[in-house]
Parts: sequence; C-alpha cells; structure tokens
Amino acid sequence: MNLHVVILAAGQGTRMRSSLPKVLHPVAGKPMLEHVIDSARALLPEGIHVVIGHGAQQVRETLDGADLNWVLQTEQLGTGHAVAQALPHIKGADQVLVLYGDVPLIRVDTLRALVDQAGSQALGLLTVLMQDPTGYGRIIRNEHGQAQAIVEQKDASAEQLLINEGNTGIMVLPGSKAADWLSSLSNNNAQGEYYLTDVVALAVAGSIPVEVAQAADELEVMGANNRLQLSVLERGWQQREAERLMIQGASLADPARLDVRGDVTIGRDISIDVNVVLEGRVVIEDNVIIGPHCVIRDSVIKSGTVIKAFSHLEGAEVGEDCDVGPYARLRPGTLLHRGAKVGNFVETKKAVVGEGSKINHLSYVGDAEVGKGANIGAGTITCNYDGANKSVTRIGDGAFIGSNTALVAPVTVGNQATTAAGSTITQDIPDAQLGVARGRQRNVAGWKRPVKGQ
Amino acid sequence: MNLHVVILAAGQGTRMRSSLPKVLHPVAGKPMLEHVIDSARALLPEGIHVVIGHGAQQVRETLDGADLNWVLQTEQLGTGHAVAQALPHIKGADQVLVLYGDVPLIRVDTLRALVDQAGSQALGLLTVLMQDPTGYGRIIRNEHGQAQAIVEQKDASAEQLLINEGNTGIMVLPGSKAADWLSSLSNNNAQGEYYLTDVVALAVAGSIPVEVAQAADELEVMGANNRLQLSVLERGWQQREAERLMIQGASLADPARLDVRGDVTIGRDISIDVNVVLEGRVVIEDNVIIGPHCVIRDSVIKSGTVIKAFSHLEGAEVGEDCDVGPYARLRPGTLLHRGAKVGNFVETKKAVVGEGSKINHLSYVGDAEVGKGANIGAGTITCNYDGANKSVTRIGDGAFIGSNTALVAPVTVGNQATTAAGSTITQDIPDAQLGVARGRQRNVAGWKRPVKGQ
Amino acid sequence: MNLHVVILAAGQGTRMRSSLPKVLHPVAGKPMLEHVIDSARALLPEGIHVVIGHGAQQVRETLDGADLNWVLQTEQLGTGHAVAQALPHIKGADQVLVLYGDVPLIRVDTLRALVDQAGSQALGLLTVLMQDPTGYGRIIRNEHGQAQAIVEQKDASAEQLLINEGNTGIMVLPGSKAADWLSSLSNNNAQGEYYLTDVVALAVAGSIPVEVAQAADELEVMGANNRLQLSVLERGWQQREAERLMIQGASLADPARLDVRGDVTIGRDISIDVNVVLEGRVVIEDNVIIGPHCVIRDSVIKSGTVIKAFSHLEGAEVGEDCDVGPYARLRPGTLLHRGAKVGNFVETKKAVVGEGSKINHLSYVGDAEVGKGANIGAGTITCNYDGANKSVTRIGDGAFIGSNTALVAPVTVGNQATTAAGSTITQDIPDAQLGVARGRQRNVAGWKRPVKGQ
Repeated sequence: MNLHVVILAAGQGTRMRSSLPKVLHPVAGKPMLEHVIDSARALLPEGIHVVIGHGAQQVRETLDGADLNWVLQTEQLGTGHAVAQALPHIKGADQVLVLYGDVPLIRVDTLRALVDQAGSQALGLLTVLMQDPTGYGRIIRNEHGQAQAIVEQKDASAEQLLINEGNTGIMVLPGSKAADWLSSLSNNNAQGEYYLTDVVALAVAGSIPVEVAQAADELEVMGANNRLQLSVLERGWQQREAERLMIQGASLADPARLDVRGDVTIGRDISIDVNVVLEGRVVIEDNVIIGPHCVIRDSVIKSGTVIKAFSHLEGAEVGEDCDVGPYARLRPGTLLHRGAKVGNFVETKKAVVGEGSKINHLSYVGDAEVGKGANIGAGTITCNYDGANKSVTRIGDGAFIGSNTALVAPVTVGNQATTAAGSTITQDIPDAQLGVARGRQRNVAGWKRPVKGQ
Repeated sequence: MNLHVVILAAGQGTRMRSSLPKVLHPVAGKPMLEHVIDSARALLPEGIHVVIGHGAQQVRETLDGADLNWVLQTEQLGTGHAVAQALPHIKGADQVLVLYGDVPLIRVDTLRALVDQAGSQALGLLTVLMQDPTGYGRIIRNEHGQAQAIVEQKDASAEQLLINEGNTGIMVLPGSKAADWLSSLSNNNAQGEYYLTDVVALAVAGSIPVEVAQAADELEVMGANNRLQLSVLERGWQQREAERLMIQGASLADPARLDVRGDVTIGRDISIDVNVVLEGRVVIEDNVIIGPHCVIRDSVIKSGTVIKAFSHLEGAEVGEDCDVGPYARLRPGTLLHRGAKVGNFVETKKAVVGEGSKINHLSYVGDAEVGKGANIGAGTITCNYDGANKSVTRIGDGAFIGSNTALVAPVTVGNQATTAAGSTITQDIPDAQLGVARGRQRNVAGWKRPVKGQ
Repeated sequence: MNLHVVILAAGQGTRMRSSLPKVLHPVAGKPMLEHVIDSARALLPEGIHVVIGHGAQQVRETLDGADLNWVLQTEQLGTGHAVAQALPHIKGADQVLVLYGDVPLIRVDTLRALVDQAGSQALGLLTVLMQDPTGYGRIIRNEHGQAQAIVEQKDASAEQLLINEGNTGIMVLPGSKAADWLSSLSNNNAQGEYYLTDVVALAVAGSIPVEVAQAADELEVMGANNRLQLSVLERGWQQREAERLMIQGASLADPARLDVRGDVTIGRDISIDVNVVLEGRVVIEDNVIIGPHCVIRDSVIKSGTVIKAFSHLEGAEVGEDCDVGPYARLRPGTLLHRGAKVGNFVETKKAVVGEGSKINHLSYVGDAEVGKGANIGAGTITCNYDGANKSVTRIGDGAFIGSNTALVAPVTVGNQATTAAGSTITQDIPDAQLGVARGRQRNVAGWKRPVKGQ
C-alpha cells in the first residue's frame, strides 16, 4: 500500500507564550513534532510531508531530515487547507494519513491499526473514548458497530450528546478521493476556516465507507495548546516509559518520579530509586542499583554496579561491580574499569580509572590515566590546565596518592609509587619511590592568636 | 462601602499535635493566618480584626502588623461568640466579612465576588460544590436559583441530602444587622456553642435576603485541623502556583514536583526541571534553565543563565548567560557577572565574580572580589577567617589561580598574575607576576611503604 | 485459641522477570514475605508455617527465623495443595489462618478482626469492597448481612455481578475441618489445580457457618505479580507511613514524596521537606527540621537540629541544636555533640565532634576526635590511611585548623592550638602553639605564562 503521511505543524501556539514555535516544545526532551515524525517513520511510508508556517525556518533547521518533505503553508486557513498544501507533493498515494505536530504521544500500533482498518477504499477515522466529550464530534455507529457519521456538538441530539466516543482528527484519506474532497471544503463557518473534519460528511454523502479505529487512551490523541497541557503530555509519556521499564524487569521505587528523556536500555533486575533522571542514550545492565536523586546522561553502567545518591554521570562508562557516589560527578570521557570506586565530592573528566582503583573523597581527576589498584587520597587535584593547554596525569598500578596532593600535569607517578600527603608533585616519580614536596613543620610556642577587630 | 473583616484565629488545633498554635502552621512557608490576612488586605477593608485565643501572644508576635486589630477571645464559645467579640471594635460597618485563620487558600477574587454580591442589605454566603457534602448544611435554592435557606444535615429530607452545594462558613453580615443577630444566637445545642451559621435562619426569619457566591473549588474553603489536611492544602497551593507559572510561560517538567514558598517572578520561556524548591523572593528572567533538584532562595537569575542539578542558591544574584552547577552553592552576597561559571562542589559567599570568570571545581571563595576573565583552579580556598576576623581576597582581571591554592586574606592577586599550584599565598602578588609558595619536590628511592598492622 | 498461620510463598513470579523469587522482592526495603511474617508474628500464633517452592533455599536463607517452620512444596499444584503440605506440621490447631507471601500490606488489625470473627467453629473469610470486582468471587449475603456463599464470576447472575464485595483468598479454617476439606478438594478444573477457595462450598455444604471480615481497602489485600503491581504496593505502603507520621505530629511538605524503609520514630513538631528518604532505624526528636532531598539511614537526630538540603547521613548520631548541611555526608561512627556544625561538601566518618565545633566547608574528617569549640577550616583533610593502616587524628578544644591543612594521622593538635593555612601537619602541636608546615612565598617578576599549543 502506498502510504503518505501529512503532519500539520504550522500553528503558532500563542497560548504557549513562547518565542519557540509550538511544535518544537519538548516532551521528554524531544520536540513534539519529532515524536510525531518518529511515529510516522515507523510506518515506513512513501513520503512524510510536514506542513509548516509559524517559525517555519526554525522548525526545519531543528528537525532536518533527508526523508522529510517540507511544505510551507503561508496562511493558516484551517486543517483542510493545510492538508491541501501537501497534496501536490503526493504522487499515487493509496492512503494519506493526517497527523498533528502537537499530538506527540500517538502510538505506532494505533496508527498501524488505523491504516490497516481503512485500507485504500475507505475513510479511516481515529476515535477515542473520552471522559468528557463536550465540544468534540461524536461518532454515530449503527447496530453492527459500524461508524455512520460524526455529529458535531451543536447538531447533536440529547441522546447523541451522551456518546463518549469522539473524533480525534487523525484520519486516513483514500488517495483516490483526497484531492476531490479537499477542494470541496467550504470555509463558510464562524472561523472562516477549511476544516478537515468536513471530509467525513463528504465520504458519507459519496457512500464511501467510514472505518474507525480506537486509540488506547485520550493521552495519545491529546494535543498541547499551552504549557499545562504540555506538562500533562510530559507526565503521560513518563508514565508510559516507567511502565515499559517495569515490565522489562526494573524495580522503580516510584514510577511517578522517574524521568526518561531519550533511549534507555535496561537489563534484568535493576533497581532505580526515586527522582532519577535519565537522558540521552543510557544503558543499564543487569543487577545495577541506582540510588535516589541521580542524573545520568549518555552513559553505560555495567552489571553489578551501584550508583549512589546524588550522583551525576554524563558521557561515562562505568564497568562491572563499580561503586559510585554519593555525590560523584563523572564527566565525559570517564571510564571506570571493573570494581573501581569513585566517592563523594569527586569529579572525573577524561579519566580512565583502572580495575579496583579508588578515588574516594573530594578530588578532581581530569585528563588522567589511573592504573589498577591505585588509591587516590582525599583532596587530590590533577592540575591539568596551565591556563593555555591541558596535559595528562599518569598514575601507575598500585600507586598511593597521599591526601591533598596536587599533581601538576604532565606528570607521571610510577607503579607502586607514593606521594606524601600535602605534596605538589611537578616531576615524575619513578616506580616504587616516594615523592615529597611540602614544607617542613615547625611549631611556634607563645603564638598569639588574632584578636577580634584587629 | 465600609467593609470590615473579622478573622477567627482562636482555635487550639489539638489534632495538630503541636506546640504551635494552629493558625501559625505554614502553608507554602507562610503561616495559614498570614495567607488569610493577605487576602483580606487585598480587599482594602476599613479594618481587619483578628480574634485570637490559644497561643494569642505567639500569634500576635509572629504576625504583627500596624493594620491589624487583635481581639482576644478568652473563652472559646463558638464561632458566633468569636465574631461577637470583634463587633465592639467595628464602627459604622456596611459589611462584616467573616474569614477563618485556618482556611488559607481562599482567593481574593472569590471574596470580592461575595462582598459585591452581598451588598450592604443582604446576608452573603459563600458556598461550594462538594464531592461529598455529608455533614455540611445544604443550600436550598428556588427555581430562580436564589438561595432560600440552609438545611442542616440532620434536618434535611432525602431529596435535600442529594444537594451537593454546601455552606462554607465564610459569610458577609450586613453591618446594620450584625449586632442584633449575634446577640440573638443561642447555645442551646449539643456542643453548647454559639454558631455563626445560625444567623442564616435569623436572616430568613427577618426577611433579609440571602445572597450566595460560589467558591471555585473545595480547596479554597478547606480548613486544616490536622497535618494530613495541612498537607492537602500545601499541595493544593503548590498546584495553583505551578499552574500560574505555566500559564505565564514556564515549562515545568512536573507540576507536582515544584515547590514555591514565596514570591516568584518569571520571564518568558523559562524551564524548570523536577524537584526544584523556590523560596522567598526569586526572580527568574527570560530563557533561564533550572535543572533538577535545585533549591533557590531570595535570588535573582538573569536571562540566559543555566542552573544545573543539585545547586543551592541563597541571596545570590546571577548575571546573564552564567553557568552554575551542578552542586554549586551560592551563599548570600554572591554576585556573578555575565558569563561567569561556578562549577561542582564550589561554595561562594560575599563574592563578586567578574565577567566570564570561572570557578569550576571544589573551591571555597568567600569575602572575595574576583575580576574579569579570571580562572580559579580546583581546590582553591580563600582563607577569609583567622579565628577572629574576616578579611577580603582580591583577585585581578585575568588572574590564574593554580589548583590547590590557599589565599590567606587579606591578600591581593594582581591582574594577569598567577599562583603556582599548591601554593599558600600570604603576600600580595603584583600584576602579571607568579606567586609560588610550596615545598620543593624530592623523590625518595628505596622507600618502604607502611605495612598492615604496624 | 490455638492459632496456626500458613503463608503461601512457593510461587515463581514469572512476570517479575527476575532471578529473585517473587516473595523476596522488597516493599519499603523489606521482602514482601517478611512483611507478611511480621504481621503473622503480631498475632502471637502457635506456629508459622511458610510453604516454599521456587527459590526455596534462597527464601529460607534470606528470612531465617527460629520461629518459622519451612514447608517445601515440591510441585505447585494450587493453593489448596500448598496449604495441605503444611497441615501435617500443625498439631491441635483451633484455627488455621492462610496468608500469602506476595500480599504484604495486610494489616494486623484486619487479621485480628478476621480471626476473632471466625472463632474455632466457622470458616472465616476476608473480603474487600472492590472498585472493579471483575474476575473475583462475589460474596453473597442474606438480608441479615450474613455471608451465604461465594459465587465465582462465571457462575454469577447479572444481579450478582453487581456485587462489589469480593473474596481476597485470605481465610481462617477451623482446625477441626481443615484436613477433611483439603483432602476433599478436586483439581478438575481448567488449570488442573487444587483451589483453596473451594473450601467455601464445602463449608456451606456441611452447614459450617461462614463468617466474614472486611479489609479496610484493596491495597491491603493486593498481591504483586509484576513490578507495576509491586510499585503500587510500594506507594501504598509509603502513603500509609506518611499518614502515620503526620498523625503523630510531623509536617510533611509532600506526603507523596517521602520514602520510609524501616522503623522511623519521631518526636513532636518535626518538619520533613520534599524527597527525603529514611532507611533502617531512624530516630528524629522534637523540633527537628529536615530539608529537601536528604537521605538518612540508621541515625539519631536530636531535638532542635536542622539537616539541610542534599545531606546524606548513615550510622550517625547528631546531637541537639546541630546544623548539618547542605551537602553534608555523615558516615558511620559520626557523633556530633550539641551545637556542632557540619557544612557543605564535608565528609565525616568515625568522627566525634565536640560541642559547638564547626567543620563548615569541603573537608574530610575521618577517624578523628575533635574537642569543643574547635574550628576546622575549609579544605581540611585528615590523612587517616597510609595505605595499610588507619590512624586517629585528635584535635583539642578550641583548636583552629587553618584552611587547606592536611593532618597526617596519628597526630594530635592540642587545645587552643592553631595550624597555619596550607600546612601539612605530621607532628603533634602542643596546646596553644601554632603549627606551620608550608613553603615560603616568593613572587617571580617577568614570568611568562604558558602559551596555547606549546
């Protein structure tokens, strides 16, 4: 079947009170329109035509894709008019599926069912059971359950008003009829707009069958006209993600307090505590435990690792059986090998940490290569930046970095080497040697402390 | 119209299980009674009379205001008795509006509608549609929708029990009738109390019209008798605030996970992630992004700035296009100029940071003036306190503070000056010079590491 | 009354998608089965018989208890079969109460009412009013409210289907009938299983009275077959805990954002902000304030203390009127005496901190004894580990540790002694003396900064 998808994305979204075009407002960290495009792509259509208007250029630049045909609607004259702009770009379509750039939670399965139900000879309508259908066109079915008509609110009888199956606006036009119908639409109504919905009457008048598919819930056909609605969609999306992860085998301390913004892949028997935020591409392997209040972006966490409270990972790869946090900040380029430990108030960046090595407290380890079994004491700083260039610190296997050591890169601490606490290390330390670089202590008797006000 | 407001605030609140008088328990960080007083003030009345009893002195001391007339009710003999205590203080009132110190979410618009509806010749009743009106007096209206009576639960017919419009207790007495009515109340009831509600019967008996206004929802007329109810009011208030901010143009990742306790002013296109707490006076300008898990109190954040996860701001002013956090703690007196950057595990206090300067890691910068384009290395500490006095550290434009530098104040690092990593700087460094203050390194060959158990 | 409890805990829980046996999945940090066992214990029964099958050994090892009789069900042939396995271990029972290892929220009060209601001569059934009873057996009562029968979904008339009182499966068998009934069960049904529920028909057939008690809500009789249901139970448990704490006198900023996993004892007038997690045994005394985003495990917090945002306590005792956080990490063995202060980015471990002493910023204090009125400057590190052994740092009363001091343990800083900022202290400092151990400063004129790319 030759399927084309038209996505309406030209609206301004005044009630967003935003300089961002409405369809670019994000749900789960991704523009609403991109969600719709992704769902459309999953149908493998012949063409995807995105009708843009307000903020057209910004929309195109944000969502550029080789498979997208951008159609400019210079005047916003209604949904029927919008689809009509796209028609000239559509060749030989059996079906034209109409989607909306501000209805981002629509499911691929729902669309597939609608397209299948419609076929190429019928008008396919997506409907939904509504808690409160006031204002929506009601679906009139006959005794066999077949849709006969849509009755608009103002035309509905008292009995019809009780129908809670409403029209969503998402529909499939038969390719053979689309052009005729759209050119027959009238704007003789209060808004002076051409309404796509009016094609239903044309189908009925022309004895074209109307086939109906139902959305699973109202959320997947809900649009966002303001930020309250946007937040409803956001939470709806998040609930869906939480359920997906739970079904796959994740225990969530509170499904309402997980935020997933991107592609999260999980193993078995993982546990995620409250208020975790996952962004970008995140892979969490078997038996990983993620503590409360963590933010994790574009990272891989291997099996058996524990990420403790208040940790912040970005662009990190954490090996098996590692122990991270609380309050650990792993920045891009961090690679922890198996069994490594990064503790509280520690920042790492472009740092490879060998198997079983420990950076337990209050340290900055950047542009560093740390061997196996090394122990980095509290207050260690790799001085990787001299104001102009960044340099690398190398710390050997089994090295022991005493507390409060500054390592002025480029510098190498050899295998099994040691630095004395409080040292500023500027020269390499050979294997197994001790580097000392600090003042000698003297105690001053009779010393007078400063006095208040002096 | 001469309007007086009487606020009943004498109750003990035993079920709060608290040593704090009930009306002082906070909603959104402010005593419930103060919310009510603030709403009363917005009506610009001739007088506000607060009837206090339990914890009277503590209530007065907490909420002292020149415009408040405190009325002591020495015995708690019911709501009618409480209002009667205030009457002698009210001169020439056209209207007496009765509010409750433990009903804090009442809206000014609702009160204004009630007062307008009542005028000076009618009894004005505030009602509300209730999910479950059991126990409340039902509002009986005639076929024109005019209120005819309140029927108490025990006196209601089966048909009347189906009425879901209930009496809230908030009412406006006509000034001309208030004294007569209150002195006619009887305490011949199970509790032996004088009930204010009984004035409705007196109005009807005296052919005084009863005018009704409806509250928007049950929350705004809900009182708190225990901490469960208090938490319902808290969340109700927070939902209201979240909706206000979204309508004004803020995107909230989760409206149910924002806490606003104070006055928050926002610009356009701001974005607030989950679990943010805003307290006191907070100004957030256009295009600001606030990350998850931040606490911000009494601060100004200028346009284009990003506050990252786990940041804690108090009494700070953050300029345009700054980059703060994660894990940044800005304490009072922090002023970041445009484009400054404060990174992880950094604490600032009374610190002015010049344009584009960076304090990226693990530092304490207090009582400090930092110029433009300076770079403060990781592990920098301004030693601003000698045990008796606090002193200032000055860091010039373009200065480079090496990592792990201690700056013993008072001290000045000149423009373009540098400190060597690991230095303890006790004397001023002239412009463009390098300050070094650290031990020279020596490596010890043949060094024996400590052995377990020795 | 001789009461025995049989707990069915043999199921696999395939839909959990887990290698952990279903009944070991935790709610509020404790295996579901342990919740049920704890409720059973509260009834002081003669015996508790736990029927195990899938993962039997792991279940036994996890929950070992001298009072538990483990019964192995080698084949899972239905609930009736499971109870039958336990019967041979039960001697002289008047009552046999059947519970489920995956129904963890059952309340002791509910069970007590059921047991009392049943007595030794009746079959006692626990029922519950259900929002949607579809699929459950309906309880048929006569005009006196006495239960007559359970009608299964498939056998129910249209009228019976409207009954929303359903069977929970929790029941009390009269000891005198249990063996007969269980041996009379048939597995002639679609699943080929022996259903415990079928004893109801046997009771009715034998004219044994059926006594009914009702659960308070559906949650307490809800089982968890997958992680979505597990999360519903988790939040239900947490809501219960939140309500308990509020009734006892805690103000919660958001009851839906508190997590209690263990035994929490609270005083009066405590206040807990959003997103706090309490684990293990936590004691919070009067007037304590806990800020947002804190994690507290196995700790005691005495009256008047404030724990600020992002703090993480474990195994700590915090005295009266202390000031902790934000971002304070107190590890096991931390003891803060009255009025002590631990500030941001500070880690303590096995540290006794004397009255009124302060560790305000960016420090690691481990294996330390700090006297009264001491001031530990920013960036202080106790170097307690030499790579082989841990040693103690002693800091005297009124000592002043200058910023960026490394204290190489074992070492003692005397009373009223001082360390100069930036010192590495390796030798004891006598009382009132000043210890200095740092390089002397020199400024280098004409110094050339590094250049990019060199």
